[in-house]
Amino acid sequence: MTEELTKMVAEARPYAERGKVADYIPALQKSNASDLSVSIFNVNGHDYHAGDYLKKFTLQSISKVIALALVLMDSGPEKVFAKVGMEPTGDSFNSIAKLETMKPSKPLNPMINAGALTVTEMIKGNSSTEKWTRLIEFTAKLTNDETVTYNASVAQSEFDTAFLNRSLCYFLKQHGIITGDVEELMDLYTKQCAIEMNCSELARIGAVFAMDGCDPLTGKQTIPKDIARICKTYMVTCGMYNASGEFAMKVGIPAKSGVSGGIMGAVPNRCGIGIFGPALDHKGNSIAGLKLLEMMSNRYGFSIF
Amino acid sequence: MTEELTKMVAEARPYAERGKVADYIPALQKSNASDLSVSIFNVNGHDYHAGDYLKKFTLQSISKVIALALVLMDSGPEKVFAKVGMEPTGDSFNSIAKLETMKPSKPLNPMINAGALTVTEMIKGNSSTEKWTRLIEFTAKLTNDETVTYNASVAQSEFDTAFLNRSLCYFLKQHGIITGDVEELMDLYTKQCAIEMNCSELARIGAVFAMDGCDPLTGKQTIPKDIARICKTYMVTCGMYNASGEFAMKVGIPAKSGVSGGIMGAVPNRCGIGIFGPALDHKGNSIAGLKLLEMMSNRYGFSIF
Amino acid sequence: MTEELTKMVAEARPYAERGKVADYIPALQKSNASDLSVSIFNVNGHDYHAGDYLKKFTLQSISKVIALALVLMDSGPEKVFAKVGMEPTGDSFNSIAKLETMKPSKPLNPMINAGALTVTEMIKGNSSTEKWTRLIEFTAKLTNDETVTYNASVAQSEFDTAFLNRSLCYFLKQHGIITGDVEELMDLYTKQCAIEMNCSELARIGAVFAMDGCDPLTGKQTIPKDIARICKTYMVTCGMYNASGEFAMKVGIPAKSGVSGGIMGAVPNRCGIGIFGPALDHKGNSIAGLKLLEMMSNRYGFSIF
Amino acid sequence: MTEELTKMVAEARPYAERGKVADYIPALQKSNASDLSVSIFNVNGHDYHAGDYLKKFTLQSISKVIALALVLMDSGPEKVFAKVGMEPTGDSFNSIAKLETMKPSKPLNPMINAGALTVTEMIKGNSSTEKWTRLIEFTAKLTNDETVTYNASVAQSEFDTAFLNRSLCYFLKQHGIITGDVEELMDLYTKQCAIEMNCSELARIGAVFAMDGCDPLTGKQTIPKDIARICKTYMVTCGMYNASGEFAMKVGIPAKSGVSGGIMGAVPNRCGIGIFGPALDHKGNSIAGLKLLEMMSNRYGFSIF
Repeated sequence: MTEELTKMVAEARPYAERGKVADYIPALQKSNASDLSVSIFNVNGHDYHAGDYLKKFTLQSISKVIALALVLMDSGPEKVFAKVGMEPTGDSFNSIAKLETMKPSKPLNPMINAGALTVTEMIKGNSSTEKWTRLIEFTAKLTNDETVTYNASVAQSEFDTAFLNRSLCYFLKQHGIITGDVEELMDLYTKQCAIEMNCSELARIGAVFAMDGCDPLTGKQTIPKDIARICKTYMVTCGMYNASGEFAMKVGIPAKSGVSGGIMGAVPNRCGIGIFGPALDHKGNSIAGLKLLEMMSNRYGFSIF
Repeated sequence: MTEELTKMVAEARPYAERGKVADYIPALQKSNASDLSVSIFNVNGHDYHAGDYLKKFTLQSISKVIALALVLMDSGPEKVFAKVGMEPTGDSFNSIAKLETMKPSKPLNPMINAGALTVTEMIKGNSSTEKWTRLIEFTAKLTNDETVTYNASVAQSEFDTAFLNRSLCYFLKQHGIITGDVEELMDLYTKQCAIEMNCSELARIGAVFAMDGCDPLTGKQTIPKDIARICKTYMVTCGMYNASGEFAMKVGIPAKSGVSGGIMGAVPNRCGIGIFGPALDHKGNSIAGLKLLEMMSNRYGFSIF
Repeated sequence: MTEELTKMVAEARPYAERGKVADYIPALQKSNASDLSVSIFNVNGHDYHAGDYLKKFTLQSISKVIALALVLMDSGPEKVFAKVGMEPTGDSFNSIAKLETMKPSKPLNPMINAGALTVTEMIKGNSSTEKWTRLIEFTAKLTNDETVTYNASVAQSEFDTAFLNRSLCYFLKQHGIITGDVEELMDLYTKQCAIEMNCSELARIGAVFAMDGCDPLTGKQTIPKDIARICKTYMVTCGMYNASGEFAMKVGIPAKSGVSGGIMGAVPNRCGIGIFGPALDHKGNSIAGLKLLEMMSNRYGFSIF
Repeated sequence: MTEELTKMVAEARPYAERGKVADYIPALQKSNASDLSVSIFNVNGHDYHAGDYLKKFTLQSISKVIALALVLMDSGPEKVFAKVGMEPTGDSFNSIAKLETMKPSKPLNPMINAGALTVTEMIKGNSSTEKWTRLIEFTAKLTNDETVTYNASVAQSEFDTAFLNRSLCYFLKQHGIITGDVEELMDLYTKQCAIEMNCSELARIGAVFAMDGCDPLTGKQTIPKDIARICKTYMVTCGMYNASGEFAMKVGIPAKSGVSGGIMGAVPNRCGIGIFGPALDHKGNSIAGLKLLEMMSNRYGFSIF
């Protein structure tokens, strides 16, 4: 399988030339556009890799799924759904217009920025520090790597330039969806986005979701089944920004992408997938990563449809 | 299983009181709000029913899936996707605003009215009559009932009042998405929406999609596998109007609803489902039908997530 | 004054090179982009001209003011304001999105297409023909030219291609703002837009508005004072599409433009102005005509501000 | 004239019962809904009053005109128009959606919040304090009252709750329209909105605009003529929020309102008007104040149309 993966990576890599690395977060601009790596973590514990799969990258929007799982465990679906919706949207992930035209002004889902900011604020904790500690410890549990942490310079870079996210936060605060201090939330959220790992670790998290929340190695239920399934459903309907429909059609794997070029996939009862390819298409998804996933889905019959 | 279905129908029926029958099409206002019936058509050929499952109703938006399958077979996915997108939308099914703000002005998907009108116009045929004949014959093949036809008075009622659909058509014509005569298209589209059948027949169509396009009785591939899967994917991401996300979460069955109160479900490799319950919630879905599907999904493990 | 006008026309004419003639109505594409002519009709009866001021052109949106005056006389302001608003808009003249997001779906003002179509339908008459007859006779009275009529080939060209206006009509019909047959209205509206005259005649109409509805030659009150003032107010706040604010700033004359390149101005108590210069800027106003008006306003102190 | 004003105030006051005081700024909720007072400051130096015209109130949006005049004097129209547009809008004064759909994301005019925030940031000064000093000294010059200052508790109340304005600021900062620190700008802007005076002083400022920037008592040109006229034009097209069109129709006076219930009017070459009536209609204008202005306009022929 490793050989096959290596071939597919070689075949997908040239697609990176049609994309470009994220430029709206200064620290991400340094990425190497032609990078492409992948890990598969089978639910039986075997893993396979291709490319420079130990290279670290920040999770960015992929972290939205982790925070969502934690908050659903913290407060239960009912309280979460009172603040964020369950519907996919045809708008861009950072759109604010819809919040104004909708009554009430509730983010459509937790995969767009407005919804993710709302979710992150809901992480339980008496302080921003406590919230952060709980989030990174939960991430450590999912990756089975206690040393997992965030990239401070990326976090700082995002913190310094996240004017649109602040705009969303204050809009949501006006409407009572966000209630706390915005700068504290921005600090927490930019750290969350800057959580750093490699493909192999990401694939391992994917495998937990693939197993409906059960850790494939320990057999422990890290995330309750219902909550893992809620997360997977969001990954299908909203995981790839406003290209989620096309992705469902062509690939059919519950997945979540980030503007760092990472993609986490969860093939039900089979495997988790971690991909890193920083050249993005115009919707913010890893362009070579998408191609690679399409090849893998066709080759291994990964689609849930 | 019939007994269980009967119990669940009895339990779901009271939810109808919280909804109301569609009022925007005069002919649909005559429906009996407390009706609720269901058929399951197993891929092994057995079927089960509860409620007045032989009562006929018009397909309305459910017909969008049938027309889509036909047009994908007629012209191939590439030509269809050139005119309609693959993305779900947070907007209402009859919204026009998004068409204006998006560049190009292409309907986001074929399950919203703008997209469905575009698809219906693409049905091959030298005349509106020929297009209609091909569509109804295809529907007959899917239901295995050559007598299937449309309800002329419902079609007329919709034709007389479908100002919003005409508005969408002319907007799309302005942008070159629709190219033919609007009144002819309206005639064809309102007939399509008025195709009439009962739950049992609808469940049978659902079973074809559940079998990836293969007829469960004859074993013939009525719809090519790839096309059946495209249709099912749309049913998951956009099948229940702008409640599709919530439905995926709570029920998890590829399904399509219509404002007549019908719902067609397709449980992969297991069964097709036909439901009729005309009392609608505010998003246009059968309110008791949704409840019934949720019960069935929980009871039988129908969710794909 | 004729000499001055001639100089200013020569100075303004080169600005036409930065614009282009309307291309969305096929018949208008034949216009000569470098044309520029002007007439001033003083309230004392004297008139002045420059350029080919006897060349005929169609009124297009300028006709909205004439129809509005007639309908206000027919039904009174209250009935008209029940169907169209009094507010300027930052949107394009043919926008439909705002109609969807506003509750109720009432056109913001009668100078955008949605509002103008609503107004034209309100012209009194038992038939489309009678409505047309009343409109053209009213126009004849304003120009003091009984032979004034419409350009049939331009009307036909617009009728054949006005898909966006039909889209607006059906949207408004859905919401009960327009109640009659859309094709009949389109026939009437495209004739109205195709009413043809030259700069001299247009200046004469402008003079009637400048005199608060009183004919400068006969002294008769062709339009009641209150209604003339309503029309002039709309000309100030919405007369130049979504460049009305800038025009008020730089020119300050109640005026109405059309995509044919015509502009009618009404300088209170002083004069009417007729301009024709078919090269348009991207907002649909005569580019050299705007420049010419700015020069005239500066030279003669025409601004009301 | 005082007697007439007193009568009109008595007649207009009951309209206050149909409105209500602003509730979105806590400190404004304490206003007495039935208050109504007016001052007229004639350009010949005479003034007339009715009601409790010495009662102080905060300027709120009325201050947008003062800041605009100062910034136009500071940087010239060209630089200002590069950052804010000249067009009225049909949207609410605190709308953000339009900023997203428009390219570039430039506020439509300086009378909506997005535009006003942009203008206030442009006040020249090396620090927020210096900017404030320049603004309040300019205001003092206009009122001829060196003691004019702001209401600290109203400013604080707005500062604490202005989440929507912060949302607008950060959105504008994302797009490079606002470039400095948002909290400093909010401090300056909320002070500006909280500048406090009475009807008599407000009428005096109105008189300066009525005189094209010339102080009616000293004869000095406090504001250059061109700039005063730009301000007056904005007052006509955008001064009364998204009721400006109706106001132009019914009253026809260049005017600016604030949610405190104040209105400043400037009748060209005749007089300035100051009104205070805190009960607002649903668009944010003083409901009895509007009625009073309509009466005054009809009685004294104040309309510019």
